[in-house]
Amino acid sequence: SFIGRVLKYLSAAPLFPTAVALLYGESPLPFLVTTAVMVVLGTALERLQPDPDLGHREAFLFVSLTWLIVPVVGTIPYLVAGQGTVASPVNALFESMSGFTTTGSTVLGEISFEAHSRSILMWRQLTQWLGGMGILVLMVAILPELSVGGAQIFREEAPGVTIDKLTPHIQDTARALWAIYAGFTLAAVLTYYGLHLLGVAPNMDFYGAVAHALTTLPTGGFSPRARSMEAFSPAIQWAVILFMVVAGTNFALFWYGFRGEPRRLLRNDEFRGYLFAMAVVSALLAGLLFAGVGLAEAPTNIDPIPGNVENALRQAVFQTVAIVTTTGYASMDFNTWDQSTQLVLLLAMFLGGSAGSAAGGIKIVRWYVIQKAMSREVFQSIHPEAVHPIRLSGNVAEEETVRSILVFVMTFFTIFAVSTVLIYVDSLRIGLELSAIEAVGATVATLGNVGPGVGVVGPMNNFLPFSAPAKLYMVFLMWIGRLEILSVLVVFAPSYWKR
Amino acid sequence: SFIGRVLKYLSAAPLFPTAVALLYGESPLPFLVTTAVMVVLGTALERLQPDPDLGHREAFLFVSLTWLIVPVVGTIPYLVAGQGTVASPVNALFESMSGFTTTGSTVLGEISFEAHSRSILMWRQLTQWLGGMGILVLMVAILPELSVGGAQIFREEAPGVTIDKLTPHIQDTARALWAIYAGFTLAAVLTYYGLHLLGVAPNMDFYGAVAHALTTLPTGGFSPRARSMEAFSPAIQWAVILFMVVAGTNFALFWYGFRGEPRRLLRNDEFRGYLFAMAVVSALLAGLLFAGVGLAEAPTNIDPIPGNVENALRQAVFQTVAIVTTTGYASMDFNTWDQSTQLVLLLAMFLGGSAGSAAGGIKIVRWYVIQKAMSREVFQSIHPEAVHPIRLSGNVAEEETVRSILVFVMTFFTIFAVSTVLIYVDSLRIGLELSAIEAVGATVATLGNVGPGVGVVGPMNNFLPFSAPAKLYMVFLMWIGRLEILSVLVVFAPSYWKR
Ligand SMILES: [K+]
Ligand SMILES: [K+]
Repeated sequence: SFIGRVLKYLSAAPLFPTAVALLYGESPLPFLVTTAVMVVLGTALERLQPDPDLGHREAFLFVSLTWLIVPVVGTIPYLVAGQGTVASPVNALFESMSGFTTTGSTVLGEISFEAHSRSILMWRQLTQWLGGMGILVLMVAILPELSVGGAQIFREEAPGVTIDKLTPHIQDTARALWAIYAGFTLAAVLTYYGLHLLGVAPNMDFYGAVAHALTTLPTGGFSPRARSMEAFSPAIQWAVILFMVVAGTNFALFWYGFRGEPRRLLRNDEFRGYLFAMAVVSALLAGLLFAGVGLAEAPTNIDPIPGNVENALRQAVFQTVAIVTTTGYASMDFNTWDQSTQLVLLLAMFLGGSAGSAAGGIKIVRWYVIQKAMSREVFQSIHPEAVHPIRLSGNVAEEETVRSILVFVMTFFTIFAVSTVLIYVDSLRIGLELSAIEAVGATVATLGNVGPGVGVVGPMNNFLPFSAPAKLYMVFLMWIGRLEILSVLVVFAPSYWKR
Repeated sequence: SFIGRVLKYLSAAPLFPTAVALLYGESPLPFLVTTAVMVVLGTALERLQPDPDLGHREAFLFVSLTWLIVPVVGTIPYLVAGQGTVASPVNALFESMSGFTTTGSTVLGEISFEAHSRSILMWRQLTQWLGGMGILVLMVAILPELSVGGAQIFREEAPGVTIDKLTPHIQDTARALWAIYAGFTLAAVLTYYGLHLLGVAPNMDFYGAVAHALTTLPTGGFSPRARSMEAFSPAIQWAVILFMVVAGTNFALFWYGFRGEPRRLLRNDEFRGYLFAMAVVSALLAGLLFAGVGLAEAPTNIDPIPGNVENALRQAVFQTVAIVTTTGYASMDFNTWDQSTQLVLLLAMFLGGSAGSAAGGIKIVRWYVIQKAMSREVFQSIHPEAVHPIRLSGNVAEEETVRSILVFVMTFFTIFAVSTVLIYVDSLRIGLELSAIEAVGATVATLGNVGPGVGVVGPMNNFLPFSAPAKLYMVFLMWIGRLEILSVLVVFAPSYWKR
């Protein structure tokens, strides 16, 4: 089956951390075992069932199962290496799912080269990069055809393929997207390491440059540094902001850009909304931080922020971009921020990046359509006879798509609300004493594939305090959140299995 | 104008508390002043502008302004009487808006016959009864015609009127509804006082029976007793449960019932959903209370609950029905409940009663349609070619209505989220130290016209701790929540004022 083929393709991936292991004199065994399992399992699955016609119905199962089986296989390096908290099966699955879904929530108790080998930490980074590759194809080529959660609207700007022409058109699309993705990743490596060579980024060695480039473009957010981007110089932080903005943009727009139509980027309503949202949130936070009211305590390990224009602006923009693009890096511990400032960030987690990128969450384009639908509702109350289609970058959105988007967001919020209560109640059960805001943060961070939340799951903390059932539930949230919820729900529907 | 006419009709209302004042030897001045102002202002407004054609556009302004001017005039008794905390303008407006919108949130610091005269407390009850009359006409006759927030769907079961035939058809509808409303109110008075005469309700004198009947049928929830329904016997509590269930039912269904079609009640999808929702929540809470895990502390002023079937069931059903119907009475202080048990109640506040009643909130029928829309979304992902209309009590709902309902709920949640943050941040500003859950409770209690929230705004507490700006903001929330949000937003839209 297709899943077998995906596994066989992926079997080359562990060779990269194998090389890292050999370079640093560490054991390559965890990765060789993984490669072996991928080859054997992939071949077995391929033999078991030849490629069926990948129709509408089968595509849902294929997508859902792929994002379940790959993360399960991806736990092997953690389990074989046996280092730290991630050596237990539940934690390994959490970390692996968080990687392949580019969420970035972690259960590593201690992130350091003492606690973990460099090759294992590089594998952790690589899972996000691989996940990002899969998501790009999913977002731009597969989901729009399946009409999931109004994903049809993502297609507007994407090089067209249809699911019945899955080969070779989907392969063409995939190659184009992956070329852009790989190109930007390479650019990030060169920029990060270039700044080091220029002397303005002393901590960013070549290992660090590669490791962080691998989690910037997929909006992943994993870092081999315990303090995330706080460990690096302002120059690096500004560079990371730039690449996060790129990573949260619809990749199809770059595709047009490179083909000589760069104007499509600026004319694109979602791209403009994306920049606008980040500008507004950044300006608000920068003002609060600069004035000093945005901070509850003064962090001692970084330069003072109040009254410092560059630092206030950088901290505000970095955190905003990291959250809106759902990357989840942090340039400082925003747990030191004032409650109200943290709330702004928490609300921003519900925005999501652009469609057609590896960003998670609800996504700007959906909010754009919803806001238009609300205005129209008001307008049509006054002028009941008026016909008033919703336009996106000049194209009329079909009413069915508008309705699907509304249903998607309702479904997102319903699952969010129920999950927050479940996580909150479970935390009371084990005596964790979560606050309601922390429960909200943990839920939206996983369901929206953002990564860190606030408080106990803040950017410098981890998800270890939760119970095993809660962690497995969050694995579920990351999984369905990544696949735009409905593509998973569909497989659970009784009507799916009826002929 | 119409508003003048409404004021003139209402000028008879203060005569009732005038009679109460005379009966108990209190000053009737506050009510005589109110009547005078209503007559003068009403006549002036009527002379100022003769009845315009009440078209689509004007109806929004009429509805919004009526629910603003009447509560403002309704503050006069509180201000003239000058008793307690409600004698200040902001508090008086809060209490009056809470009354006329049948919300039931209070800023009375001390609810007792020592702090307030019997006539003032009766006026407070009466504002809710008057508000309920207005809402019934609004819900059944006006909003469906204006197509606000999918309110078209409320019409399905209602005696049909159209806005262009406002007179005399709307008057026929209004008379029919008010007859039912008044009839049930009378039945409640007789039942409550009858139980007293039978000796099973010692505290329920005739004043109490009238006072509580006046706030049961409009799902209002005000009580002249500080401890709400905890002050009364189990017999009264069961009777109140019954009348709350009636008050939260679509009154048009009773209209059909009395005309010889009682089956329409049982065949009605919303009514069934309404009973089902209350049964599920009650059963869950009853189980938790009976087992004892639902209580954080044992209340000392009522019988023990764990292991006591009748008491556990009564407390669970009472609180559930009070919240789902958005009445907001309490038969005990549910602040003594466990955090998770309180969360269940908090979530239930988002349900709302039935359309075509005076209940507030999102309303069961909207949830019913949304849940159908979600299932359909999943079904249509599998069978893209299938046509699958949404049915409600056998009738096909128009797609435009479905979309309006989705937009309404999105708007409700957006305003809810923003308001929660504003109220939370304001509470931090004044050092109130609200928890996030308390902020959620305060917002949904006012926007959903429920009345009490949890914690600091729990059923035995009040809204006094909030700042004046926060109280005025909640006045705004009660106002827009009562008018199904969009009918107010429409008037604020720039396109409303363009010809
Ligand atoms: K992320
Ligand atoms: K109420």
